[in-house]
Amino acid sequence: MDNQLNNLLKTNYDIVFNQVELLEQAFTHSSYVNEHRNLHLEDNERLEFLGDAVLELIISRYLYTRFEKEPEGKLTKMRAAIVCEDSLSKFAKECSFDQFVMLGKGEENSNGRTRPALLCDLFEAFLGALYLDQGLEKVVCFLRQVVFPKIKAGVFSHEMDHKTALQEVLQKNGDVQIEYHLLKEDGPAHDRRFWIEVYAEGKLIGTGTGKSKKTAEQQAAAVALETYMREKR
Amino acid sequence: MDNQLNNLLKTNYDIVFNQVELLEQAFTHSSYVNEHRNLHLEDNERLEFLGDAVLELIISRYLYTRFEKEPEGKLTKMRAAIVCEDSLSKFAKECSFDQFVMLGKGEENSNGRTRPALLCDLFEAFLGALYLDQGLEKVVCFLRQVVFPKIKAGVFSHEMDHKTALQEVLQKNGDVQIEYHLLKEDGPAHDRRFWIEVYAEGKLIGTGTGKSKKTAEQQAAAVALETYMREKR
Repeated sequence: MDNQLNNLLKTNYDIVFNQVELLEQAFTHSSYVNEHRNLHLEDNERLEFLGDAVLELIISRYLYTRFEKEPEGKLTKMRAAIVCEDSLSKFAKECSFDQFVMLGKGEENSNGRTRPALLCDLFEAFLGALYLDQGLEKVVCFLRQVVFPKIKAGVFSHEMDHKTALQEVLQKNGDVQIEYHLLKEDGPAHDRRFWIEVYAEGKLIGTGTGKSKKTAEQQAAAVALETYMREKR
Repeated sequence: MDNQLNNLLKTNYDIVFNQVELLEQAFTHSSYVNEHRNLHLEDNERLEFLGDAVLELIISRYLYTRFEKEPEGKLTKMRAAIVCEDSLSKFAKECSFDQFVMLGKGEENSNGRTRPALLCDLFEAFLGALYLDQGLEKVVCFLRQVVFPKIKAGVFSHEMDHKTALQEVLQKNGDVQIEYHLLKEDGPAHDRRFWIEVYAEGKLIGTGTGKSKKTAEQQAAAVALETYMREKR
């Protein structure tokens, strides 16, 4: 196995495999196995099968615990946004896993190394291998570095309502008091309008308007979130 | 909570909940919550979200370990056959969980208590509650009683080839030597026919015929499996 991969895992994630053959298998694409039949290698597909379920449980537990007031439907949507090809392939790239996967020549020449489906499978296979080698909690540690910060930062929060998303973002480093105040309401009863201001620790961070307090609050939160994200960049 | 449920769990599965409120929540359907808003109950949907992932991982790990030669595609098919509404609702009934779920009147009157989707969710919610209360390995113990024996008995084996299924069934209580013998072959080269006999511990248990040894073996295994299942009843 590429020594560089071992070093990267040790340096970045404090991971040292006991069964190095599991790590090798995780980084062996079926196209490589097919082109090297004499080596009797096993590809990473069975590990991917396992890793997929490992990831699903860890993300589910995380969401269940972190968003204790959210209904099941919202948790399911968030989970789907995290555990999907698009997200997982990005995680694989961020970990530089794409540099180490062993591909057949055909797959290499057709840019397999950048193909999201392949990278997604690679990421899951790695999780499966790590799980078999060192158990569930070690995989949790790895995801705590690679995935959880993104959930906290609201990367998947388009699946949440804006108020929850704002709360997530502002409270990621500890408790922050967020308050919504009705600034005013006007208009006739059948066409009422509400103005809401949202404050964080007493500081005005957004305003919104709508036909109900609820929609006005959502707009205020969306505005605050957008401002916050823009200023962070 | 119904004391009968506690007794049933203790007697049949050696399960005693520490956080009884988790068990209560698992058995509380949303229709009951809606009809008893003054009680401020929480329904079992969030627990079902979690339990679904718990089940997926445990079944995946079981299949991965038990069928070490099967490719990912076959494992995925088997997992889907086990973790599906039809199977899970049957497990819930076999555990008598249907007798204890708290339903609203409307749901009760429209036979909600026998509805597969509801029973499936109930089973998953129970697993979620048990996981939170006592951890993953305790859920494994429970499934070892309720689900694994069915996998071993070949209930989901229509997803496997017959030879593997036969092996599973015969070897469930220890190693059993299974041998396939070519009895004869005949016919012209372009229309060759093979006769295969399958033996378990030296005893003939099935015969099969086909245009290749492989298909003849599959037929012999299917015949042996069918005979075995019929005699067991």
